[in-house]
Amino acid sequence: MTSQLDDIRFALTRLHPIPGDVLGADDVAALLEEMRKFTEGVVEPHRLEADRQGARFEGGEVRCPPAYHDIYAKWVEAGWQGLPADEAHGGQGLPFALAAAMKELLTTADHAFSLCPTLTWGAIELLERHATEDQAGRLLPPLVSGEWNGTMCLTEPQAGSDLSTVRTRAEPMGGGRYALHGQKIYITYGENDLAANTLHLVLARLPEAPAGSRGISLFACPKLKADGSRNAVRCGGIERKLGIHASPTCIMLFEGAEAELIGEPHRGLPAMFAMMNNARLQVGIEGVAAGARALHLASAYAEGREQGGKPIARHPDVARMLAEMRATTLAGRFLALEACVAADAARAGVTGAEEKLALLTPIVKAWCTDRGVAAASLGVQVHGGMGFVEDTGAAQVLRDSRICPIYEGTNGIQALDLVTRKLPRDQGATLRAMLAAAVAEDARLAPAAEALEGATRRILSAGPAEVAATATAYLEACGWFLGAAQLARAARLDVAYGPIAGFYMARLLPRAVAHCQEIAGADEVLALIA
Amino acid sequence: MTSQLDDIRFALTRLHPIPGDVLGADDVAALLEEMRKFTEGVVEPHRLEADRQGARFEGGEVRCPPAYHDIYAKWVEAGWQGLPADEAHGGQGLPFALAAAMKELLTTADHAFSLCPTLTWGAIELLERHATEDQAGRLLPPLVSGEWNGTMCLTEPQAGSDLSTVRTRAEPMGGGRYALHGQKIYITYGENDLAANTLHLVLARLPEAPAGSRGISLFACPKLKADGSRNAVRCGGIERKLGIHASPTCIMLFEGAEAELIGEPHRGLPAMFAMMNNARLQVGIEGVAAGARALHLASAYAEGREQGGKPIARHPDVARMLAEMRATTLAGRFLALEACVAADAARAGVTGAEEKLALLTPIVKAWCTDRGVAAASLGVQVHGGMGFVEDTGAAQVLRDSRICPIYEGTNGIQALDLVTRKLPRDQGATLRAMLAAAVAEDARLAPAAEALEGATRRILSAGPAEVAATATAYLEACGWFLGAAQLARAARLDVAYGPIAGFYMARLLPRAVAHCQEIAGADEVLALIA
Repeated sequence: MTSQLDDIRFALTRLHPIPGDVLGADDVAALLEEMRKFTEGVVEPHRLEADRQGARFEGGEVRCPPAYHDIYAKWVEAGWQGLPADEAHGGQGLPFALAAAMKELLTTADHAFSLCPTLTWGAIELLERHATEDQAGRLLPPLVSGEWNGTMCLTEPQAGSDLSTVRTRAEPMGGGRYALHGQKIYITYGENDLAANTLHLVLARLPEAPAGSRGISLFACPKLKADGSRNAVRCGGIERKLGIHASPTCIMLFEGAEAELIGEPHRGLPAMFAMMNNARLQVGIEGVAAGARALHLASAYAEGREQGGKPIARHPDVARMLAEMRATTLAGRFLALEACVAADAARAGVTGAEEKLALLTPIVKAWCTDRGVAAASLGVQVHGGMGFVEDTGAAQVLRDSRICPIYEGTNGIQALDLVTRKLPRDQGATLRAMLAAAVAEDARLAPAAEALEGATRRILSAGPAEVAATATAYLEACGWFLGAAQLARAARLDVAYGPIAGFYMARLLPRAVAHCQEIAGADEVLALIA
Repeated sequence: MTSQLDDIRFALTRLHPIPGDVLGADDVAALLEEMRKFTEGVVEPHRLEADRQGARFEGGEVRCPPAYHDIYAKWVEAGWQGLPADEAHGGQGLPFALAAAMKELLTTADHAFSLCPTLTWGAIELLERHATEDQAGRLLPPLVSGEWNGTMCLTEPQAGSDLSTVRTRAEPMGGGRYALHGQKIYITYGENDLAANTLHLVLARLPEAPAGSRGISLFACPKLKADGSRNAVRCGGIERKLGIHASPTCIMLFEGAEAELIGEPHRGLPAMFAMMNNARLQVGIEGVAAGARALHLASAYAEGREQGGKPIARHPDVARMLAEMRATTLAGRFLALEACVAADAARAGVTGAEEKLALLTPIVKAWCTDRGVAAASLGVQVHGGMGFVEDTGAAQVLRDSRICPIYEGTNGIQALDLVTRKLPRDQGATLRAMLAAAVAEDARLAPAAEALEGATRRILSAGPAEVAATATAYLEACGWFLGAAQLARAARLDVAYGPIAGFYMARLLPRAVAHCQEIAGADEVLALIA
């Protein structure tokens, strides 16, 4: 059976080669091996202990688990923070797809730790796109080095999925400075003792801003000001959560904190959403990573645990669970990396890449995270009673992974994005091309492709209420189908993927058709809220 | 929309009326209302706090959450412990189906608390069947009153799903007494400070017992001996678990503890399994209760939370999640109560009841618990970010419910029981009769019935490896189909169930067919372990 690293290398060199010719296959392999060494050797050993200790809030300060200080220092020292950042600001300028590979390995090692550096990647990306040259010169180098971490301050108690109701105010102080007043919630690593400083990227309203989503601007607000003094932003507390216990989820209070405007006034939401597309892919990868960690734990347990005279891994129903975990994780990995490679291709101006990326993003975010939670739950099941006991770590994967279908836009929001924006923008042409390519690859996909073609026609001609009522079923159908297409193509390129692809076709692909049939049941949902 | 209590009353008086004419519909309604008052008024208010406090192990003693002492005392005082027990030993002699109703309401109120009294019900049942008159006279009255609690000591570190490898030894001490030596794990309320004494029902081997499952005997071993002195059984520690934190899961060490034999020597496993059938139905009901609690929390949140200018309950995709929770919980409730009523009917000698009970038991245990976990996860999703924060209780339902697919025989074991024992014992005749009755009820069920008929033929003619590789898919197909049949029948009896039945047919029933298709994919599983 191929390893996680084999699969990623195969994806980035053969299944969905990284565009351009900067990196050869050997370079990719060598870099992946360095990532593996770091994540397995430095990060993973502290996963269980960090979860048990959790992040603590004491006297207004947040204390991360002790081991995280050393891990973060080594992360910075090795230069990983700059992986995808522009060389102009001290980064390595490597493709996004390689950052995605690191994201998967890092999250597999420790989901809670991974969030600090990968949110900083998001902050870097946002500033690279929207900061002035002066701002970029001041703000990017310490983020790219990892001296500072970055946060995304979007959500407020009344503004969750609907960010148009953001109330945080930005008052001009003169000299291009603004004073922020408001409360933000669910701010990951909003306060921490890992980085020397924290840069908050904050959505807030300028005075006289139009109501709704067209009146929200983006600000950069450091925890420590340029003179080293403390800014008027503080942590009001951290959440007691189901999982990712070691990652502090902060309530942040802005009490006149000095900030500067990033980008155009009132254009904060579009700027944030552009960055959020990549963040959504990253969360999809977190789902893949949950599956990878769950599979690793469950396989090891099932090989070592004997019942009825043989390892339980040899009992067909346990083998079925392990196969389902492996098949969905592998399909999700390939699908997510296809989207990440498309992101690199789109940046390089490759025709069609932008369309593919746009369509795949909500599918990767939602389908891969739902599969990650399902794989984590199967992993608990494979462990039997030991799975419910926290000692094995299987339960931790389930607890940690459960956030993925929620944050960066709930999976329901992803489904609406797919059916109301991504699919109609070319009347389904990009999706149809994918269906045709998949069937050309493997005839076993034809019946499901036909069902999905019918579902697509129906979605494109339906009214808004019907579309909303069947959006999730449609996204699920797309996910199960496209996952099958990934494995079919992988099996053609390398026979090692044949058996797991065969398992997927026989045992999982029927779900795509079942979800297509659900599309006909929109009225039955709408009747319940009439 | 009907309430949980409406649904249970409807099930026990109209859909699956309790056999015999001891209780009229008004009696059932009055009793259910008393149950509701107790569980909602006395138990439920402490659910979150008890979970936060958890059970503690201090100096060899187990401390339950403080509120549990009062709740348990009121439970005993109200006489609920004796609900299904023989009047000869102080019980109320009420039907098992009414105990099942109480089980659902109690678990909905607090899963962790419910385990103490309902495991005692299992101990009572076991003794009612297998104790001598002398034993029954001594041991049953304190269990039936609730003065003592009862435990089931089965699992050992090496003996989980395969109990034939139990090693605990029973050495004859003369005078019909035995000294038990061994270690048992996962003993729910094995040590506690709620009941004055605890009676352990223990599987152990007599000297010279045959190897394997035919050499295991059943013993009763009290924590305190008849003279009030402490027996040589103690708690070695409690598990740190994903959920049911307030329920102590104990490692129990038997160090020469005095015990007496229950039933015939070497016949302990069949005795235990007979009791476990009802216990499996009870766990299925725990899955239903998880769905009920999850739905209660999610509905209330979704009605109160506004985004985009209206309560999120009115957003179609949230309505879809709530409907899925309601449909699966309702179908599971009706299916579980049909099985419980069949248990009462079988005891009364009604023709065909025993066969129906046997067939439904593994389906209720596995399908209802998987649906419970899925509903709990949907409940978290409906809450968005608040679902991941422990304050709402939604995450607690997910954590608590996750044990249900594992204990009392994993769901994989249930699937094997269905396909290797329950289905072949009458060559599928009982199941086919259910399929025919369902289609006669509602023609919308015909295509799924046909698919299930085909799957049944295939399972009955397949070899053991193929059967094992597809057992879970087959059980899932049965569950989704039989759940639909319940709602179809309910809708015909009462139009109030029409809309949710319509939702189930359109949106959930296609899953039955998809699982039937998976049956063809046995070879793809077996190839992976070849």
